[in-house]
This record gives sequence, structure tokens and C-alpha cells, in this order.
Amino acid sequence: MKKKLFTALLVLIFGASNSPAQNADSLMIRNMANEILTQGTAYKNLEFICKKIGPRLSGSANAAKAIQATTAMLKEAGADTVYLQPCMVPHWVRGAKEIAYAVLPGNKKYPLNVCAIGNTVVTKPGGVLAEVVEVKSMEALEALGYAVKGKIVFFNIKMNPVYIETFRAYGEAGVGRRIGPAQAAKYGAVGVMVRSLASNIDDFPHTGTTQYNDSFPKIGAVAISTKDAEWLSDALQKNSRLKVFYKTNCKMLPEVQSYNVIGEITGTEKPWEIITVGGHLDSWDLGEGAQDDGAGCVQSIEIIRTFKKLGIKPKRTLRAVMFMNEENGLRGGLAYAKHAENYKERIIFALESDAGGFTPRGFFTNAKGETLNKIESWLPLFKPYGVYYLAESDGGADIGPLGKLGTVLAGLSPDSQRYFDLHHAANDVFEMVSKRELELGAINMAALVWLVSEYGLY
Amino acid sequence: MKKKLFTALLVLIFGASNSPAQNADSLMIRNMANEILTQGTAYKNLEFICKKIGPRLSGSANAAKAIQATTAMLKEAGADTVYLQPCMVPHWVRGAKEIAYAVLPGNKKYPLNVCAIGNTVVTKPGGVLAEVVEVKSMEALEALGYAVKGKIVFFNIKMNPVYIETFRAYGEAGVGRRIGPAQAAKYGAVGVMVRSLASNIDDFPHTGTTQYNDSFPKIGAVAISTKDAEWLSDALQKNSRLKVFYKTNCKMLPEVQSYNVIGEITGTEKPWEIITVGGHLDSWDLGEGAQDDGAGCVQSIEIIRTFKKLGIKPKRTLRAVMFMNEENGLRGGLAYAKHAENYKERIIFALESDAGGFTPRGFFTNAKGETLNKIESWLPLFKPYGVYYLAESDGGADIGPLGKLGTVLAGLSPDSQRYFDLHHAANDVFEMVSKRELELGAINMAALVWLVSEYGLY
Repeated sequence: MKKKLFTALLVLIFGASNSPAQNADSLMIRNMANEILTQGTAYKNLEFICKKIGPRLSGSANAAKAIQATTAMLKEAGADTVYLQPCMVPHWVRGAKEIAYAVLPGNKKYPLNVCAIGNTVVTKPGGVLAEVVEVKSMEALEALGYAVKGKIVFFNIKMNPVYIETFRAYGEAGVGRRIGPAQAAKYGAVGVMVRSLASNIDDFPHTGTTQYNDSFPKIGAVAISTKDAEWLSDALQKNSRLKVFYKTNCKMLPEVQSYNVIGEITGTEKPWEIITVGGHLDSWDLGEGAQDDGAGCVQSIEIIRTFKKLGIKPKRTLRAVMFMNEENGLRGGLAYAKHAENYKERIIFALESDAGGFTPRGFFTNAKGETLNKIESWLPLFKPYGVYYLAESDGGADIGPLGKLGTVLAGLSPDSQRYFDLHHAANDVFEMVSKRELELGAINMAALVWLVSEYGLY
Repeated sequence: MKKKLFTALLVLIFGASNSPAQNADSLMIRNMANEILTQGTAYKNLEFICKKIGPRLSGSANAAKAIQATTAMLKEAGADTVYLQPCMVPHWVRGAKEIAYAVLPGNKKYPLNVCAIGNTVVTKPGGVLAEVVEVKSMEALEALGYAVKGKIVFFNIKMNPVYIETFRAYGEAGVGRRIGPAQAAKYGAVGVMVRSLASNIDDFPHTGTTQYNDSFPKIGAVAISTKDAEWLSDALQKNSRLKVFYKTNCKMLPEVQSYNVIGEITGTEKPWEIITVGGHLDSWDLGEGAQDDGAGCVQSIEIIRTFKKLGIKPKRTLRAVMFMNEENGLRGGLAYAKHAENYKERIIFALESDAGGFTPRGFFTNAKGETLNKIESWLPLFKPYGVYYLAESDGGADIGPLGKLGTVLAGLSPDSQRYFDLHHAANDVFEMVSKRELELGAINMAALVWLVSEYGLY
């Protein structure tokens, strides 16, 4: 494309005139947007978190470094107060890289790209070598029942490509990883391989957690790359007696003291009404946790910076939270809600960004009735920055526990097409994040928390 | 993000019920979407064009290969007829890689990343060595006037980051490249360096065309990477007498016979009413022309494939066109319109995809009045696939010449945040394209041309 001009782009979209209040609001949002797009530090902060620190699994030394680093960033951003909120976190370590292969005729080994599923127990000494039973649904496993005894169950459940919202496909296909190891163990399986929850075909295995069932043996389980899942499925078609070997080296260590990192701007009129905006600071250990969820952290810090830089004084208290341990325990989110409950904090609104720093398209929220109407009335203010819809859903894992306290929950809904190419995998690195997309997310988040701080929700 | 479900996503967006006709239409579009998302060949075709062929500047051997390849792809897609439409094209070649550096104290050379601007004349033998005058607008050049005589004019005009639509920033900042070399020559400058039209800061120079003025000398001009433009600007602050050297090796060769590639499905009821959908097959020589505009080509082919595969018989004739020479001459687009005029073809609608294969967000169109109302009435059908707006603008460079024939023009409007990170540069490669985003674009394009084929535009 050579020289197209989009000068008239907004004519059709914004034909209707807004009220004077909305015009003043739109100017405020424009100021914040200009600040973020010209002086923004979110991208630089993300680079630091990804490249100078790296993967930040809960309990790791890197997670501790990230706590220090984001504390410093929040101070630099000008937060009135910055503090740590304690929580104990699990400390799972992967150990040496996993080994896996299929045994081909002549005892040749065909290597398979796998990774231990997070929080899993280690494979028995010497690893697992067994025939493989492929299943494409949990129902298929139930139909087989004890026929999988002594075998490795291969959950080859693809993310459904026809769902436009990839999170829906992730939710459905994720059953294999979430309960597959427990269900297979129930029927005497000796191992479980799960097709990675990825929307593309490549060599990266994608980790995540699983839920064991204490009534059955806990077996070491791995995720296999989508490319190798395709290969294995084909190979099993040709030879149903094919054997696969895998060995993990992971371990659950004693729990570790850790923290949520919190930075606040005290409200000028109703400081007791608290608005929370956040992301999670921990990440899986394979990549750099760039899109999941370094992005949400640096966007939240950017909001504090922008308010202070522009001298915006929120009427209600604005609190940026870097939650710890979203990935494999949710201890930070639970501690945050518990503290709010114990101290009777009035957290009126919580917004999380944990679907990647991709170009924003909407918000989701559990708001209802008049509160929903109020948020909907603001929608025209977001359209110039790419946010077109409000969808009904919880806001995010970390803020979920606030729901029972009556907090209105919301989440940024960025474009989801690329998220599961890299989610929980080694390619979730800084280079996969677009500076402008990250900043557009921060702009829309800043706009929403500012509107709530100005007008409240009731 | 761990396990968020977006099941309720569409509740708020599509609360209003559609008419029965729209329900039938939405089923048809859902069928096309399912086909494209599960059996699509656009991504594979793009890989071939990018990796097996590569850059496809008009007149090059690769451009000829791409004509052959897309002819075969259109036949494979099942087009009723596939043919070539001749056009003569310019044949500019870059020659050996450009050399450029700043001369530092002690005669040390600081290398600069530059590329010749497309269609420019070569630098004089031995290259250009001169002091540099930095200007940040065309007005600044006019104010300096003959003070730039004997100097290199450095147009350091940044793309304005506060524009949310990056095409707007490109249009404004592009004045330096488009007419800078001609205007600087008017005042006796011996050279021109233009800051690359890129929204990010990196080492890639971005090419493009310029328009000389026959009344003044034609001088060889280069684009400099944004990173080096920043460096040069700083260096000039410290030393205004700094000299820069550059040398290009480009040449304009005799024109070459080339072609648009066209594949058609003949309409069943009004075959004389023609719907054109296309992209441009040529690309700049630095990258692989993946987003610009291999994407638009393979999306257009995908529409033909999908119609044939699903047995959809359009009432009006559907014609996919791979335009030649959009980048540095527009000869394909001009030939296409000329042919339509000469043969009194009734091209009722033309849709171009030439803003990248990024996630789709809207359409732009020059439609007015009842026609615009008709297209707007279809908007709810696109929302499930990410298209939320209609914006007023021409559809694209190649189809532009059809405007005077009364053709309604339209373009796909994908998200524009990442486009100018790679536009006309060496990093416009296959790996920068998301399969799902590319396919979503094809889905929305297929839906729009199908609706026009079914219902017409008047």
C-alpha cells in the first residue's frame, strides 16, 4: 500500500455528537493517550522485565528480582505509596530439560518436543516407556476405561480453529491438560501426554497446570508440541503398538515467601473507594512472560505514571497491583482479596490485563444493571482507541476472588488471534510484543479507570 | 492468563435479533468462515510466494515467477477462467547494496543503514559527500531555501505517534519522501536522505517511491533507518558541520512486458455485473512482500477457492485480480481500468486488501447514499469476525482508477499498529504474518463480496 490516507476514518463512526461532559472526558483521554504514545515507558519497562530478568515462575530468584524491579518502577512512576503484600507461593522447578522420543523400528529414537506440565510430579526413576493410546476427548477416555491400563494416554485435543475468540477454543480443548492426568491415572495409565494448547503448528511445547485427584495415583505428565502431536497421531495410525518414552526432572520444593507489588495514588474525594488495576508478575518458566503477563504489569504501572505526569488527581484511590502466582496457585489474588476482606477495604472496581498486550478491541465485565449501563455509556470514548465492545465475562483470574466482596470486575479484551501461538511457551518473548499495541492497551485501561475514579460506578 | 472463558462474549454485542434474511446470510458466512479456518490455503500460498519466490519488484524475474505461481493457484482454486492481462511496467533495479556513513573526527566512518528510494536515479559517480542540513518539515526547507545549496538535505520527519490510525501518520510524514528530493534539488541540494517512514525505531531502512520534478535536477536519494536518523539528528546537534557520504547503485532499465493475473467465477444471473477483489502481486525488493501485499493476493485467491469448494454460485461475476506494479507505477491498476473502459465492462464493486494481513477491524468505502446504507445494513454480519466499522475512504491504489467508471470502491481495514514496522522494508517477511489474522481478513472479504454478488449494490 502506497499512500492511502485515513483522514475521513472517523466520520462514519462518530457521526453522532457527544454531550459536553463526554467532550471534556474525551479531551482528558486524548491527553493521556498523547502522553502514553509519546513519553510512554511501558515498552522499556517490559524490555527490562523480559530481558534483564526473564522467566519469573513463582518462588524463583527471578520472581524475587521482578518484585524489586517493579517496586522501583512504581516509585519511578511517582506512586504516592509503594508496598509489598505478602503471600506464600508454591515453588515448582522444572529441573533438567525433559527427554522424550518415540521408539521406531530398529530401536531408532524419534525425538519429541515436550515439557513437563506445571506443578506435576516427576516421572518415576528411569522415565516412562509404554504404548500409547490416543484420545481426542475426555469422553473417548471414559469409553476406553481400563483399556488404558499400563499405557500412556495421549490427549490429542485440538483447539477448535472455527472459534473466532481463541479463548473459547482454549477453554474447551484445555480439559485434557486440566484433568487428563488425573482421569487417566484413575484407569491405570502410566503416563499422560497432552497436545499443547496452541492455535498454530510448531515445535514449542506449551506448559500450564493440571489438577490431580487425591484418590488416584499422581503421574508425571507432559505437553507435546502441536507439530509432534500431529506426527505422533499419524505414527499411531500406522503402528498402534508404537512405544513412547519420556522423562521429566521436575520437583515441588517447599513454599516460598513472596509478594504482590502495589503502588497507589490516594484519592482526593473518596480515598476509601479503591480502584484496582493490575496484571500478574509471575510467568511460566519457558519464555520471558512478555505477553503473559509482563504486558499487563507494565500497562498498569504506565497508568500510575501517566496520572502523576499529567497531574491528574483521581477522586478515588487508584491502586496498581502486580499479582504474584497467577500461573500455578493464584496465591497473590487470594491474598489480595483476603486482605481486602479482613480490612474491610471498599474495592469498587478491579480491571485486569491478562490476555496479552495485543491491540485492544473491547472490555469484558461482570457489571450488571445500572453499573453496566454506566460503563456502556462511556463506550464512545474508547472507540477512537480501538475499543468497540463490552462483553459479559469475569475480568481475570487474579481479581476473581474479589467478586464475592462485590467488586465490579473487568478485563481488557485485546485481539486474541496470536495469543495462543506463544502462551505458556518459550516463544512468549519481548520481541513478540508491539510497542504501539501495548500502549493502546494502556490508554484504554487508563481511560476506564479514570472514568471510574471520576464518576464512580453506582 | 489461565482459564478464562469467553463464552458470553457475544451476548452484549448481538443482543438485537436479525431479520430472517440476515440469519440465512450469517449461516452462509459461517460456512465460509469454517472452510477458511479449517481447510484454508491462503497461508500456504503466502509461504510459497514469500519463501519459494521472494521479493517481486515489477519487471524482475521473481515478478514473472509470481505471475506463473498465482495463475496456478487460481486454477487450483477452481476458477472458471484464469487469464493474464498485459501491461508494460517500469524495471528499476537497486544494484549493489548502498553504502553510507557519517565522517567522524579522525576520518572515522560511522556506518548508516540506508537504501535507495525506489525509482530514483543513481548518485553521481563516486557518491555524494557533503554537509547535512536537517529539516523537520517541508516548510522548514522552504524557509532555508538556497541555504541548502551544495548540501545534503536530511528530511527527519517522524510519523506522528499520537495518531491512532498509522496510515494518517504515514500520509503526513511521507511528504519528505514523496516530494523531498525534487524540492531540495530546486534549491541546489546535492543529496537527500529521508527518515524511513516507520513507526518503530530499528535498523531497517524503508523504501518507497518519490516524484521528481522535471524542471529541476534529479538527485539520487536514500531512506535512512529510524535508529540512524535519531543518531544523525543527535550528531548534527553536536556538530553542525558533520559530513555524510552515500552512494547508490540503482538503475532504471527499459520497460518490461508484465501482467495482471485474473481468475473468475462467472455469475449465474447477472454475469455482466462484475465484482473485483484483489491485492497487488508486485512488492518492493527488500523484503518478501508478505504483508505488502502477498497477503491481499492470497486472500483473494482464497475467496475463489472457498466459493468453488462450497459450491457457492455467485449471481454476479466474481473476479480475483493480482494487480501488477502497485508499488512503483500502478500500471496494472491503470491497465485494468482501461480495459474495463474500452470493453464497457460493468464493474459494480471493487474490494482491495492492501493494508496488510493483520486482524481485520473494518472496511473503508467511497460508497454513498443508498449504496452506503445497504453496506451498513450488513455490518452486523461481520461483527462475529471482527469487523466493526465502515469508514469513508477510497478502497486502494490499484482499484482507484475504476472510480471514474462509477465502480463502488472498498478496502479491507485491518489493524494498522504493526504495519509500518515492516512496510517496504527487509523485515516484511512471511514470519510476520499470523495465519489466523490472514484468514480472518479473507473471511470478511469473502462475506462482503458474497453479499454484493447476492444482493447487488443498488
